[in-house]
Parts: sequence; structure tokens; C-alpha cells
Amino acid sequence: MAGPRVGDAFGLMLRAAASAPTGSVAEIIERDDGYIYAQRPDRYFAPPEEWHEFERAALELARGDVLDVGCGAGRFALALQDRGVPVTGIDVSGGAVEVCGKRGVRSVIQGTVAGLAGARFDTFLLMGENLGLLESARRAPEFLAELAAVARPGARIIGHGADPRAAADPYLSRDRPPGQLPGEMVIRVRHRDVATAWFGYLLCSPDELGALARGSGWRLTSVEYADKVNYLAVLDIPATRSSGSQ
Amino acid sequence: MAGPRVGDAFGLMLRAAASAPTGSVAEIIERDDGYIYAQRPDRYFAPPEEWHEFERAALELARGDVLDVGCGAGRFALALQDRGVPVTGIDVSGGAVEVCGKRGVRSVIQGTVAGLAGARFDTFLLMGENLGLLESARRAPEFLAELAAVARPGARIIGHGADPRAAADPYLSRDRPPGQLPGEMVIRVRHRDVATAWFGYLLCSPDELGALARGSGWRLTSVEYADKVNYLAVLDIPATRSSGSQ
Repeated sequence: MAGPRVGDAFGLMLRAAASAPTGSVAEIIERDDGYIYAQRPDRYFAPPEEWHEFERAALELARGDVLDVGCGAGRFALALQDRGVPVTGIDVSGGAVEVCGKRGVRSVIQGTVAGLAGARFDTFLLMGENLGLLESARRAPEFLAELAAVARPGARIIGHGADPRAAADPYLSRDRPPGQLPGEMVIRVRHRDVATAWFGYLLCSPDELGALARGSGWRLTSVEYADKVNYLAVLDIPATRSSGSQ
Repeated sequence: MAGPRVGDAFGLMLRAAASAPTGSVAEIIERDDGYIYAQRPDRYFAPPEEWHEFERAALELARGDVLDVGCGAGRFALALQDRGVPVTGIDVSGGAVEVCGKRGVRSVIQGTVAGLAGARFDTFLLMGENLGLLESARRAPEFLAELAAVARPGARIIGHGADPRAAADPYLSRDRPPGQLPGEMVIRVRHRDVATAWFGYLLCSPDELGALARGSGWRLTSVEYADKVNYLAVLDIPATRSSGSQ
């Protein structure tokens, strides 16, 4: 089998979903063990009144200049904008950024947090399960350091995590090399003839999240479960930085 | 990547869709060039009033003992049963056969037409684009002969075909070895950790269908297009068999 070409499958899916009747476009996610599933992309476009309660609660926790990390179709950026909160969306997907723009997100960047040199933010939103962007035990400290590098003193991360301990999935309990977490997944999005590159996506418990944050400058200060799997986590950086590391 | 295990992904999908809210289960189809798409399985369960006009017309053409080939969730078998027409469904998918049974199809067989030795039918339904089951130029004459072997004199095939000439798909216009048709696809169904084996699926024009039938005992006697792509074809076998082949 020739295989799909590597590209912005996520963005192509969002663009298709943005202009198609509800239910006619699916988001297809494939895991590196061959597991595959399709889900409706509706939630990327949903207004706050259709969100989970804990997602609306996350909006209330945002303060100062907000960076919506992995902003997708911009549902959080739009909701904050509507409340007069200064927010910038960022996504590696060009298609996502295009959709955000068309939907009215005024400040949106295609790229990675590492590329944001010079900018400073007070709140980082990692909603829509975007704590998964921590990728792996190996990558997470680096990513948290990238966020810290563009954080103002006293900044916070507001993240939606998924606890892998609630899932009875053999993939999540298989043997791992030392240093890997059970919730480290490798996935890609597929859309027609295109697939994203494979990328790491981390399901972690709050304890694991707290441990990953150690030494990054961030400290896990609050966790609230919405159900058995999903939780809202807040990580803070000190208002006054100490001269050394923690 | 480990890849999915080979199994009855189509049946697992139908079983999931039969018991889940509409729109929550998708049918994922992958082509051997890496193209992938998801579609809602709703049509497998739709009652006649939601069908295309040409699909309802197909019901009117069925006569005598009917075999619904590739019966899926049994929508055609159920509609004929409701009209008092004797009908048997057949599908290679155990999950499909299970769903048919639960939905009230009284006669349904898991297996292939080649395995039906001894049975005889007057009508073969290949609806729901099931002329695709002809698979390829190589396989089609064999499959048509298998149908002829269980056909009573004067029997007919009522099939839904898709004409590949209307599609602007490079896959369908790529170079092929001699003897292959442009509309020969190789696909599989994927559902969670399972994929069907790869199988051939043929898009053919009515002219190609007529040519494939030559020498099989079947003769293409009627074609009606429903739109630029989809057509309803009827093939007949003579009411009195000649002693030799045609």
C-alpha cells in the first residue's frame, strides 16, 4: 500500500467541516497500533452553551493576555474575544489557522510555542484535551519550558487532561521502555489522501502531570475531575521568579 | 506500525451502529493508495421512504425467490419481506448477518454465493452499489457464473452500479496492467482495532458491465441512470437454456 501523503490532514478536515453540513465530515484518528476511529468534528465549532461545564469554568480562570495553544477552529479564542479578553490562538495547522480567521479570531498564529520568542502571556489554555500536547515523558519538560519562556511572572496554564487509568485499553497497559508513561500514544489524523505526521499524544494522571512539571518552573496547583477520565488542571509559575531553578 | 488485526470490521461497525445513537458510529473505508474516508452508516438502516427513487424502483423489479447479495443490515430484505416477497439475505460478514436477524430478516445466510449449492433463485439483488462485488475484470466472470449456477431459468440480476467515468479521481485514471479496468479499486473497512482483508471493488460503466457479462449466461438488458454516477442495471438469463454456452 502506497500510503497517504504527509500534510495538514487536521486542517483539511476542519476546513471541510467548516463549510459542509453537520455530520457529513468526520475526523479520523489512527493510532500506531492500527486502532482507528472517527469522530464528529462538531465540538471544534460548538459555542460555549454546548460545552461541558468544566470547559466553561476554564474560561473564568483565564486572565491577562491569553494564548490558546492548539486553538483548532478557535472555539476558546472566540469565546474569550467575546468577553473582551485579549487572546491569541496558535496552531501548527495552517488549515486550522485559516478556519480561525474566517470565524473571526482576530489574533492567530500558525506555528509552535517555541517560535514565539519575544511574546509574553499570562494564561495558556490547553483545552480540548490539549494537555495531550505534552506528548511524552521525554518531551513534556521541554514543552513546559517553552511555555515558561513566554510566560509573565504569575502566569498559569489551564489544561484539560484525560486520565488513562480509567480506560481498560491494552494499548495503555502494554510494556513500555523505562521512562515512558502508560498514557503515551502515537497517533495521526487522516483525511482523504493526506495524513499528518505521526505525533505523540499524552494521557496522564494529575500525579504524572505534577511530576512532569517539576523543575520546569510550573507547579500543579489545582485539579478538578469532571468525570472519571476528564479533569481540569491549573499550573502556576511564581509571581516573582527566584534566581535559581526550583 | 503494528496494523489492525484482520476480522469482520464491517460487521462490528454495523453492530455498533445498530445499538448506538445516530451519527455516533462511522464506517471507515481505506483504499490501497492510502485514501481514507468515513461515512455515516445510516443508509444501511434506512426504510424505503428514505431511499433514492431508483432504489425503490429496484424493489418493483424483484420477482420470485430473491437473493439479496451482500445484504448488510438487511434494508432490502426487510422491505421485500414486508411486501410478501420470499427473500434470503446473504453476506460474508457474520456481524451483518447477526444484525439482519435482530432486525427481523427471517432468512439470512453467512457465506458466499459460491457456497449456495442446491439453492435456486429468480432474482439477485446487488443493490447498495453491490455491483462493486464483481471486484475486477478478472473476478467478475467467475462471480457472474456463480450467480448463474444458482439461477432459475429466466432469472435476473438487479444491480446498482457506479460509473467511474464521472469521477475526476487520479486513482481511477492511473496506469493499469493490461486487462484491468480503470474502476478496479482495492479497499478495506476499518473499525477500531480491526480491519477486513483487502478486497476488490469494481466501479464499472454499463458498457464494461455488458462486456464482463459476455459468456457468463447473463445479458445486460436495461440500464437507467439515476444521476451522473449511479445507475440501475438489469441482467437476464434466458428463460430456456440453450444446450451450449452463448
